Amino acid sequence: MTEGKGVSLDVDSSVNGPLVAEVVTQQLEAMLAAGNYDGVKTLLEPVQPVDIADAIGNLPLILQALAFRLLSKNEAIEVYEYLEPAVQQSLLDRLRSGEVLELVERMSPDDRVRLFDELPAKVVRRLLAELSPEERRVTAQMLGYEVETAGRLMTNEFIDLKEFHTAVDALNIVRRQAPYTETIYSLYVTDRERHLTGILSLRDLVTADPQTKIGDVMTREVVNVRTDTDQEEVARAIQRYDFLALPVVDREKRLVGIVTVDDVIDVIEQEATRDIYAAGAVQAGDEDDYFQSNLFAVARRRVVWLIVLVFANGLTTKVIANSDEVLRQVVLLAAFIPLLIGTGGNVGAQSSTVVIRGLSTQRIQTLGLLKAVLRESIAGALLGLLMLLFVVPFAWWQGEGPLIAAAVGISLVAITTLAATAGASLPLLFHRMGLDPALMSAPFITTATDVAGVWIYLSTASWLLANIAK
Amino acid sequence: MTEGKGVSLDVDSSVNGPLVAEVVTQQLEAMLAAGNYDGVKTLLEPVQPVDIADAIGNLPLILQALAFRLLSKNEAIEVYEYLEPAVQQSLLDRLRSGEVLELVERMSPDDRVRLFDELPAKVVRRLLAELSPEERRVTAQMLGYEVETAGRLMTNEFIDLKEFHTAVDALNIVRRQAPYTETIYSLYVTDRERHLTGILSLRDLVTADPQTKIGDVMTREVVNVRTDTDQEEVARAIQRYDFLALPVVDREKRLVGIVTVDDVIDVIEQEATRDIYAAGAVQAGDEDDYFQSNLFAVARRRVVWLIVLVFANGLTTKVIANSDEVLRQVVLLAAFIPLLIGTGGNVGAQSSTVVIRGLSTQRIQTLGLLKAVLRESIAGALLGLLMLLFVVPFAWWQGEGPLIAAAVGISLVAITTLAATAGASLPLLFHRMGLDPALMSAPFITTATDVAGVWIYLSTASWLLANIAK
Repeated sequence: MTEGKGVSLDVDSSVNGPLVAEVVTQQLEAMLAAGNYDGVKTLLEPVQPVDIADAIGNLPLILQALAFRLLSKNEAIEVYEYLEPAVQQSLLDRLRSGEVLELVERMSPDDRVRLFDELPAKVVRRLLAELSPEERRVTAQMLGYEVETAGRLMTNEFIDLKEFHTAVDALNIVRRQAPYTETIYSLYVTDRERHLTGILSLRDLVTADPQTKIGDVMTREVVNVRTDTDQEEVARAIQRYDFLALPVVDREKRLVGIVTVDDVIDVIEQEATRDIYAAGAVQAGDEDDYFQSNLFAVARRRVVWLIVLVFANGLTTKVIANSDEVLRQVVLLAAFIPLLIGTGGNVGAQSSTVVIRGLSTQRIQTLGLLKAVLRESIAGALLGLLMLLFVVPFAWWQGEGPLIAAAVGISLVAITTLAATAGASLPLLFHRMGLDPALMSAPFITTATDVAGVWIYLSTASWLLANIAK
Repeated sequence: MTEGKGVSLDVDSSVNGPLVAEVVTQQLEAMLAAGNYDGVKTLLEPVQPVDIADAIGNLPLILQALAFRLLSKNEAIEVYEYLEPAVQQSLLDRLRSGEVLELVERMSPDDRVRLFDELPAKVVRRLLAELSPEERRVTAQMLGYEVETAGRLMTNEFIDLKEFHTAVDALNIVRRQAPYTETIYSLYVTDRERHLTGILSLRDLVTADPQTKIGDVMTREVVNVRTDTDQEEVARAIQRYDFLALPVVDREKRLVGIVTVDDVIDVIEQEATRDIYAAGAVQAGDEDDYFQSNLFAVARRRVVWLIVLVFANGLTTKVIANSDEVLRQVVLLAAFIPLLIGTGGNVGAQSSTVVIRGLSTQRIQTLGLLKAVLRESIAGALLGLLMLLFVVPFAWWQGEGPLIAAAVGISLVAITTLAATAGASLPLLFHRMGLDPALMSAPFITTATDVAGVWIYLSTASWLLANIAK
């Protein structure tokens, strides 16, 4: 069989989720409008839940509830968990209260808590009151943990075994509980007080002799996290150890939940987006929100940093205004200010980018912080010297003589060295002080070096003018 | 049981991998120096392979091979796969050739290919020649795929079943093959020509009636990728669908391998680092290399972009030099150049950051590209107007009168609008042209708006001076 035209969904498009969702939306809308409900069922049967969720989210509001009702019960839960929070809410308003209750009751606790975070407090109280006692207890408990901690990411739907179970008994427990658990591939062993005493994988269980006791095949050294462990730390641990899931214990070291790898991938992406936004001086926040929020919300998330930076730039203005004497004498000096501060800014941005990313992926720690700063400073000086080769001849020609060329050359090396040192050390200093190093990202380094760079440049020119040129 | 002092490895430190590795290194070095080899075995028994790998990597060169030899055979393979490439190589030089061969023979094909990528061609040829025929065939085939494609990430160690197998037969196959496969949780069904016809999870298999045929419980609609699919696309698919593994097919749609979620997490982090580095004008490359490479390598990865940017900044110099007449008349105008171009740069950096990240996480596509640019342009104008409130009074005071205040105010709004438009549209244009949008990241947008911003500002001032001030 070779590839050819006429295949409805080829291999390449099948991995392009957003595209699949778009195609499905169009067909779905046409079928719903025509009242072809059997057609909808056939259409959606082979589609992945996340693509169905995107397609429903793209539908006009009035069709969303209609499409959602055509899903089978089990599929509806899965699709609902993938919907955007705004669509989840509008569906809650449009479904009958019995339907809503069943949906919320059957969601995974972690997804339910994420939904409740978005709903008005009044609605949450009502829904909580109507949940079954067990689900209510779990949900209330999870809502009590701080956001972005393991307690919020975890699910309590895991399989726990006892050390005295035989492998064959355990496999039967797994079979029975499989429909109600998030994963059956990581299994947990607890004692009578629910303390975690070991873990084993389904692989261990399947390959074990049927009569072996669980206590003899489990691993007793368990990497675990606490309910208050930061989500980024949880993500790093799962990534580092290639785990499919990680157990979460409470202060008394009792097993209360597990975090699975799929939740953690989203955390890693979310944290990367945060680093990238910080590097671009955009206020941190949920990325989904960003592309959906209105213009004023977009402006609000940027204007604060911009105004802070404008005030900092005002200092540069002051420095130049105070040196207007030297500019009045050699007006061409002004032409090189953007080049010098631009280059300083770029070198500083490079250093801070590398250091902030290194802190966040924990790789810079192996190098040692002081050594990292020293390395960046030397690199800054080296880069300044390399650029002299291009900049000094240009300044000589454009600045009509050696005075400007000398001032530009001397200050270039000073500025790049300073920018690299500041770019590396300020994020590290923030890190040491327990603040977020990303606050000291490129735009701030750039603005800080602007002030110093202009001062160095104009002072150098002024000194040269007074002592050499005369 | 409550927490207390005296516990050797508390819960929090157990998730801090780099710290664990550091503590283990110290004890390991002392024990090796004292010849206490039994102590080493006891020490390492409860430690995770990745932490052992870090600890061995931190040891002095002469102790690395010694420590490595004390590991059990199975553990040695796992630890070796986690070692840094440089340590892997130096170990190859220090182990006996029989030990090397066994190690390389037993590695997973994907890890082996990654190692071979780092070794000198001569060594690779020799090792390839000494591999068993089956491993040699797989390795040579994978080395033939382009780097950063599914073909390089995948492993051929998966379980494939036939549709006519019963669940109980299939479970026995899984049991037998478990020790030799990367995952037993995703199972693949192929026909006689090895075409992929379906998938099922071990969960499906364990919960199925023992006499059911695989053909009746498997899922026939399979999301898959081709050997030449880009690794980022593979990562996005696994992330989107919450898969534990994804099948890879060749051009004839025969199943040739699978990519597992643990490999994909590293790809997501690697791609994020690349985006972040591009945003800071640092040349893309392997992050591990960065913190280990020497100063000249560090400088080399930055100097190219810096020189490009210096040439672009030279244009700003030309623009200012050409307007020296107006600067000679009102020298204080120069004092506001850094503020204006700095603000333009910051607004442009925000827009390009948001757009590049949106492209890379595929979220901007739902908004529509043209709409995204329009939104950014309006946001830019809005931000410019907001900043007028602070900037114009400052310019009036510092610039000693209305002329400079007017020139600064008018050009500020023009510059922020232009910067936001360029910041949003240039990355999108690059994306459309099939180039990497990250090339149009903050430093380039900043430098481009510098030239235009200075020209707008000085032209405005010049026009005001000629037409109004007189």
